[in-house]
Amino acid sequence: VHIVTMPEVNIPEIIKKKRDGEKLSNEEIRMFVRSVTDRTIQESQIGAMLMAIWQKGMTHEETMALTREMTHSGQVLQWPAEWRNLVVDKHSTGGVGDKVSLPLVPALAACGCKVPMISGRGLAHTGGTLDKLESLPGFNIHQTPAQLQRILDEVGCCIVGQTENIVPADKVLYALRDATSTVDSLPLIAGSILSKKAAESLFALVLDVKYGKAALYKDINSARSLAQLLVTVGNTLGIHTGAVLSRMDNPIGRCIGNSLEVIEAFECLKGRGPPDLKELVVCLGGYLLWMVGKSDTLDSGKKTIARNLDNGEALRIFQAMLVAQGVPSETAASLCSENQDYFQFIRRAQNQIELVVETEGTVTEINAMILAEVVHTLGAGRTKAGDPVNHSVGAELLVSVGQHVKKGDPWIRMHFETPVLREDQNVYLQSALVIGSKAQIDDTPLISEFILPK
Amino acid sequence: VHIVTMPEVNIPEIIKKKRDGEKLSNEEIRMFVRSVTDRTIQESQIGAMLMAIWQKGMTHEETMALTREMTHSGQVLQWPAEWRNLVVDKHSTGGVGDKVSLPLVPALAACGCKVPMISGRGLAHTGGTLDKLESLPGFNIHQTPAQLQRILDEVGCCIVGQTENIVPADKVLYALRDATSTVDSLPLIAGSILSKKAAESLFALVLDVKYGKAALYKDINSARSLAQLLVTVGNTLGIHTGAVLSRMDNPIGRCIGNSLEVIEAFECLKGRGPPDLKELVVCLGGYLLWMVGKSDTLDSGKKTIARNLDNGEALRIFQAMLVAQGVPSETAASLCSENQDYFQFIRRAQNQIELVVETEGTVTEINAMILAEVVHTLGAGRTKAGDPVNHSVGAELLVSVGQHVKKGDPWIRMHFETPVLREDQNVYLQSALVIGSKAQIDDTPLISEFILPK
Repeated sequence: VHIVTMPEVNIPEIIKKKRDGEKLSNEEIRMFVRSVTDRTIQESQIGAMLMAIWQKGMTHEETMALTREMTHSGQVLQWPAEWRNLVVDKHSTGGVGDKVSLPLVPALAACGCKVPMISGRGLAHTGGTLDKLESLPGFNIHQTPAQLQRILDEVGCCIVGQTENIVPADKVLYALRDATSTVDSLPLIAGSILSKKAAESLFALVLDVKYGKAALYKDINSARSLAQLLVTVGNTLGIHTGAVLSRMDNPIGRCIGNSLEVIEAFECLKGRGPPDLKELVVCLGGYLLWMVGKSDTLDSGKKTIARNLDNGEALRIFQAMLVAQGVPSETAASLCSENQDYFQFIRRAQNQIELVVETEGTVTEINAMILAEVVHTLGAGRTKAGDPVNHSVGAELLVSVGQHVKKGDPWIRMHFETPVLREDQNVYLQSALVIGSKAQIDDTPLISEFILPK
Repeated sequence: VHIVTMPEVNIPEIIKKKRDGEKLSNEEIRMFVRSVTDRTIQESQIGAMLMAIWQKGMTHEETMALTREMTHSGQVLQWPAEWRNLVVDKHSTGGVGDKVSLPLVPALAACGCKVPMISGRGLAHTGGTLDKLESLPGFNIHQTPAQLQRILDEVGCCIVGQTENIVPADKVLYALRDATSTVDSLPLIAGSILSKKAAESLFALVLDVKYGKAALYKDINSARSLAQLLVTVGNTLGIHTGAVLSRMDNPIGRCIGNSLEVIEAFECLKGRGPPDLKELVVCLGGYLLWMVGKSDTLDSGKKTIARNLDNGEALRIFQAMLVAQGVPSETAASLCSENQDYFQFIRRAQNQIELVVETEGTVTEINAMILAEVVHTLGAGRTKAGDPVNHSVGAELLVSVGQHVKKGDPWIRMHFETPVLREDQNVYLQSALVIGSKAQIDDTPLISEFILPK
C-alpha cells in the first residue's frame, strides 16, 4: 500500500507569516486554498487571512499561486483541441450601464471565436450581465459544462452562471470579502477575476479596468496598477491577457437598469445604439481579435468587430444564443427584427416620469454614481447577494454629454414601480445633471490606455 | 409606548475604519463587542477585526472602551459595601512552574483581604491554576456567584473557574485569537485580562508581567509596554492596579506539572519551599497590601505576607478554602499537616526516572521552555482547549542555578506515564541543563521593576 501523507496544515502559522508581511510559499497558499475549499478552515481564520493580505499585500508570485490554486479548487473546463486558439473572454471591473458583454460576445463569435462567458450577478451599484439577460423570457443562465460545449459548438458563444463546481474557493472568499471590508485588495481582486477566467481554459482574455467617479478605483493610477497585475498574472498563467483602462464617470450608453440595458444592447447589435457603447465593444473585441491573431493590427480588429455589428452577423448569433439558452425562437426572432416594440416581450415598469432641465446650458457631466444609487433604491439592484431584483426598474437618458439643453427639456425618463418618485429622489437625480459650458467638459477619451503584457 | 431604536450596526464599516488605522469611537467599540456577545457578527468578521486591531493597534482610550464593553458583556460581581477596599486579585501573564497564586491567595486572605480569584486552565506550555488545583481530590472549580460570596465571607478567598455569564465576549475573542494568530496584540491582551478582573469588581489588582525565554515577551521592553498599558487602563477603569516585571528564564521553583506544583505550593505554605517562589509570593502580596493601605510601605507589606506564610496562617486559610471548594476535610487536614506524604492523596505518575549531570561545573541556567515542552509532550498540558491533561506528569528539579554539580549527580526527576522516556526526549531534556562557571550566571534580579500608576 502506498500511503501519501499530507503535510500537516498549520493555518495559524500561515496567517502569522502573512500577518508579519512575509512571503508565503506555493505550498502554504495551496494549503490555505484547500482548507477554504474543503471547509476545514475556521471562518474567523479566513477573515484574519483576508485582512492580513489586505494589509501586507502579495508578491506577483504569491498572487499567481493564489490564482492557480483557486482555479484548481474546482472543475476546469476542457475544450476540443481544434478550439485551442479560439477560446476568448472579456471581463469588466464593473460600471454603471455597462452592457458591453451583450453585443461583444456574439460579435466575437461572429468572427470565429468561441466565447464561454461565465458571468455574475449584480451587487451594490453595478448591474450583473446575468440579471440583464434574465429580463428576457425563458433565458436560462444554468448550463452544464456539456451543454455549454454544445452551445459553443453550434452557436459559438454563451453567457452562463457560475456552476457549483467552478472555482468553489472563490465563492467562499468572494462572499466573505464584502463582510470583512477586504474587497479592494489587488491580489484578492486578481485571484478572484483570473481564477474564474482560468477555469474557462481561455486562450485570450481582455480586461476592461474602469476608473472614475462610479468605479471601484477613483483614479487612473490605481486602475493601472490593477490592470498591470492582472495582465502579468494572466499571461504567466498561460492566458494571453490584455487590458484597457476606461473612464467611468458618465453612464455607458443611455440606459441603466436590467431590461432597459438589454434593449440598448439589441439596438447596438442592430448597428444603432449609443456611440460610447459601440466604441467599447469595438475596442475590446478588436483587441481580442488582434491577440488571437485573427487580425494583424488592433485597428483592423476593431474594423472587423464594427462590420459584424453593422452587417447583422453579431445579431444573428445573439439570436441563436438566446434560443440555445431557452428563449422561445419566435420571441428571439421578433426581438431581433428591425423595428421591434421590445416591450411586447420585455415587461415595462408600471410608471414612467420624465424629469426636465432646470437651467439652460451644455451638459458637461451626467453623474453615473447618482443615477445608479437612485435606480438601486428603486429596486433594480441588490444590497446583499440573493436579494431579488426588479428587472423593469431603470433610467433612460434623453440627453448626452456635450449637448445643449434648454430649461424645461426632458433629460431623463425614470422607469419605476413605486407609486411616486419621492422628492428627495427627485432632487438627488437632478444633481446628477451638470450644466455648464463646453469648455468644462472633461475630454479625456473613453479608453485612454491599452495595457499589454511586458 | 416608548421605542428605543438602536443605531444600525454596520460591522464592515467598523472593520474598515480600524483596517485603515482610524480611531474607533466608544459607540463603535460597543457595537462590535455587543455583536460578538449576541453572536450577530459573522466569525469571519471577528477574524478580520482581530487582525486589523493586531495590525493597527488601539489608543489607550479605545483599549479602555474595549475593556469596559467586554466587562459589561456579562455579569459583574457585586460585593457587600464593607468589603469595598478589601477585594483584591493578582494576574500573571504565565510562566513555567508558576504556582504563585496557590500560596498568595490564602496569604492575602490571612491579611484580611477578600480574594475572589477567577482563574483559567492551561494552554500550550503554561500550566493553569485550575488544572493544578484539580489534582486535589474533590476540588471543585465551579462555584456560583452566591457560593463564591459565601466562601469569601467565611474563608476570605477562593480560586474558581470562569462561569458562562462572566465576560462572555472574552470567551469568544480569546478562543479565536489563538486560531487567527492575533494573541500578541497589546490592546487585545489588555482587554482580555482586565475585563475578567473588572468583572470581579476589584479594589486593587497586581499584575505579574513576565519576560524572558519562556515568556510571551522575550525582552523586558515589550513586557514593560504591556505592564504600563495594563496599569494605565486598569486605573482608569477604577481598579488600583500595579505591576511587576519578573524574569522567566529558569522555571519558578523546582516543580513543573500540575500535582507536583500543588505539592510545592503546600511546602511554601508550610514556610518551606524554594526561595524564588516565596520571593514572588511575598513581593506580589506585599504590593497589594501596600495598595489597599494595609501596609504603609511596600517593604512592610512584604514582611506581613512572609510572616503569614511562616506562621501557618496562610496554610490554615488554604485548608479552609480547599474544604469550602469540595476537598474532604480529613484529606485537607492531612495535606496541611507538617510531614505529610502527599502521594497518599495525590496520584503519583507510574514511572519516575532521574537524569544525571554529564559534565562537572556550575549550573548557570535551567531552560524552562525546554522542560515545559517535554512535560507538555508527556501529557501534562493541552495543545487545544478542552483536551484532557494528566495531572501526575511533570518534572522535579534536584539542583538549582548557581549550584556546583559533578558528573553523575542526578539533576532532574521526570514523572511520566509512557513506558519509557524516548531518546530524543532525553537528549532534549539534557540540553536544558546549562553547565558553566559562576561568572556566566545571569544575576538580574527575579523581579526587576515595579510599575506604578502615573
